[in-house]
Amino acid sequence: VRRVSPQRLEAFSDGVLAIAITLLVLDLRLPEGDERPISELLLEQWPAYLAFGVSFAVIGIMWVNHHALFRRVRQVDRTLLFQNLFLLLTIAVLPFPTAVAAEGLQRGGWDAKVAMFVYSVTLVVTSLAFGLVWNHILRTPGLLRVPLSASARRGALIRFSWGLLAYSALCVLAFVSPLLTLAGHLGVAAYYAFEQLPAEPAVAT
Amino acid sequence: VRRVSPQRLEAFSDGVLAIAITLLVLDLRLPEGDERPISELLLEQWPAYLAFGVSFAVIGIMWVNHHALFRRVRQVDRTLLFQNLFLLLTIAVLPFPTAVAAEGLQRGGWDAKVAMFVYSVTLVVTSLAFGLVWNHILRTPGLLRVPLSASARRGALIRFSWGLLAYSALCVLAFVSPLLTLAGHLGVAAYYAFEQLPAEPAVAT
Amino acid sequence: VRRVSPQRLEAFSDGVLAIAITLLVLDLRLPEGDERPISELLLEQWPAYLAFGVSFAVIGIMWVNHHALFRRVRQVDRTLLFQNLFLLLTIAVLPFPTAVAAEGLQRGGWDAKVAMFVYSVTLVVTSLAFGLVWNHILRTPGLLRVPLSASARRGALIRFSWGLLAYSALCVLAFVSPLLTLAGHLGVAAYYAFEQLPAEPAVAT
Amino acid sequence: VRRVSPQRLEAFSDGVLAIAITLLVLDLRLPEGDERPISELLLEQWPAYLAFGVSFAVIGIMWVNHHALFRRVRQVDRTLLFQNLFLLLTIAVLPFPTAVAAEGLQRGGWDAKVAMFVYSVTLVVTSLAFGLVWNHILRTPGLLRVPLSASARRGALIRFSWGLLAYSALCVLAFVSPLLTLAGHLGVAAYYAFEQLPAEPAVAT
Repeated sequence: VRRVSPQRLEAFSDGVLAIAITLLVLDLRLPEGDERPISELLLEQWPAYLAFGVSFAVIGIMWVNHHALFRRVRQVDRTLLFQNLFLLLTIAVLPFPTAVAAEGLQRGGWDAKVAMFVYSVTLVVTSLAFGLVWNHILRTPGLLRVPLSASARRGALIRFSWGLLAYSALCVLAFVSPLLTLAGHLGVAAYYAFEQLPAEPAVAT
Repeated sequence: VRRVSPQRLEAFSDGVLAIAITLLVLDLRLPEGDERPISELLLEQWPAYLAFGVSFAVIGIMWVNHHALFRRVRQVDRTLLFQNLFLLLTIAVLPFPTAVAAEGLQRGGWDAKVAMFVYSVTLVVTSLAFGLVWNHILRTPGLLRVPLSASARRGALIRFSWGLLAYSALCVLAFVSPLLTLAGHLGVAAYYAFEQLPAEPAVAT
Repeated sequence: VRRVSPQRLEAFSDGVLAIAITLLVLDLRLPEGDERPISELLLEQWPAYLAFGVSFAVIGIMWVNHHALFRRVRQVDRTLLFQNLFLLLTIAVLPFPTAVAAEGLQRGGWDAKVAMFVYSVTLVVTSLAFGLVWNHILRTPGLLRVPLSASARRGALIRFSWGLLAYSALCVLAFVSPLLTLAGHLGVAAYYAFEQLPAEPAVAT
Repeated sequence: VRRVSPQRLEAFSDGVLAIAITLLVLDLRLPEGDERPISELLLEQWPAYLAFGVSFAVIGIMWVNHHALFRRVRQVDRTLLFQNLFLLLTIAVLPFPTAVAAEGLQRGGWDAKVAMFVYSVTLVVTSLAFGLVWNHILRTPGLLRVPLSASARRGALIRFSWGLLAYSALCVLAFVSPLLTLAGHLGVAAYYAFEQLPAEPAVAT
């Protein structure tokens, strides 16, 4: 089995995440050719600011967790390379559902519900991609620097299941209250910010 | 307390700053479908060039100072990670108020004032985010390579207060003279370019 | 002959590839000013999602292979620097034929055929550029860490020829079935994902 | 005098250059809402392809030369940091004159001339910025790893003067033949690709 160090994978992932998080700003713009006062144009775009903030938090915390995950990885095999590529796809695409969410919330009604459903589904897929990567790393001997204890594996599984459950619930909530759904995404991001990966044994990095 | 080296945080921050500074160019473009001579279209866009230049200087100098700050940091904790993420958000969003400033200055009148106010408020928030990061680094034992002397701390506080005061003043000035406000932002950038961080004790980097 | 280590070339290439792959998302957007329900707008854009997915896979796998190739390189000369720059050009331009493919498939008919032909021609050129780089590395003594055996060279040649043949065939297939052509591109990407570079002798990296 | 290693400056410059070169693709796009056949839309955009190719070559070769220059630098002072920032500004802005050139060449007539003049002026400024950086590095003791010989300095001066002269000539040529001017820019890029920096003494990198 041929394997490589995770260094260039981390650099490439960092690049894609840094670009995706910065591209979010491109959805903030004044509508072209609209002659109304700027203050009015700026105020009516509040959903775009909310969506920008939430997506920035989501990608930012994914970066922190991606980082925390790969710090434990010693070697990367081809499967992991492609699973990570799929994970990056689901994150790199996020500026699109973010723009859809902003447009939907501005329109309101059924459009807002559809938009927040699309946004939530995207994160269900991201969550599954993270799960695939995590599962492959746990099951393949020799990828981790230090094998995880049974309780740490259980912790990781619980953590993953919570996320998947929460994102799935948000897919449903989208049809009840789009704005609450957006708040819910911020909540899940906060959960992942505070609920850390299982404690890591001391290893020279 | 779990802590990591600032290396990947610096790389990610560099990425976001490099992308944000380069995305500024996307606000420079010929209006689509406008058949007037190119020379005319180019000349009437002078506010966009000014705004581009000032924002490029602002982000560039923030990069220099971010760099100078984190060179002193030995370890990063989770709080710092998230505070830095918030700081990056306020910088990554800058292309939007830059475009608003350009549009406002081109329209003139009340729109110009609102636009420059929005631009200045953004930088007040950036300034506060820098203050949070700086404060956390100073107050948490073990994050700095070498603890700062009392006078160096005072210097950093003065430096921070000046910036916050200047950006707040520019929020007010926006309603008096939008163009002077833009010039003021260039002035603050120049201040931060020349007024350096407190002298750093010689440490192997 | 002046030569440099491939390190900064790899970093620059990683940067361009990471940006190109992330810029693909900019072609996913709701048409501006179209008042139909968001669900309808989202559904009718299925060609854009397909094109996004295929191009993401294409660039991602090119990154993996670029990485695998340059891991064997010890030194870079000026010719290689410029050949690599040309290779990067052909990859950095891919978001454009991707957008053309999406538009063409949505329109259907002759437009779909032309669009998929343009997409396929782009990848013929990328393939030739990879061939140039590969050929120069093989023929110039001292660029590789370890010279390749005759059979490994033959393997690389076969691998390259297959790709060129496949992309050329897809240029023709475009005029028969545009959708099958897109599927074909996913197939070639999968081939390059699984059919690895010739086995590499064990060398300290 | 406080000085730092050029490492993070190089990383930031690489980032900006990689992003600027990749953003060039955003000027290649089908005009929105134009119902004519895709083949026609693609063919009439030939100036955009030319401008893309030339600017890609220009930025690519600037990257190569930036790299070659800073490989000789041991230490960076604040002045150099800001001069480099100005150099990056002139390169990061290039996608804009590139788009102007494409639009101008498509319109033809006086617009083409103005557009190619603007494009050429941008590169005069880039050239001056490179000259500033180069001059500061030569005149400040201790920045270079190894001081340059008198003949190497003369070589660098000649090389710089040729570039400045050529770009200035292209500003004039723009009003005679816009297409020849674009070809001229490709020529200057080729000159800088082949005419290397003065020979570098062997130093451990």
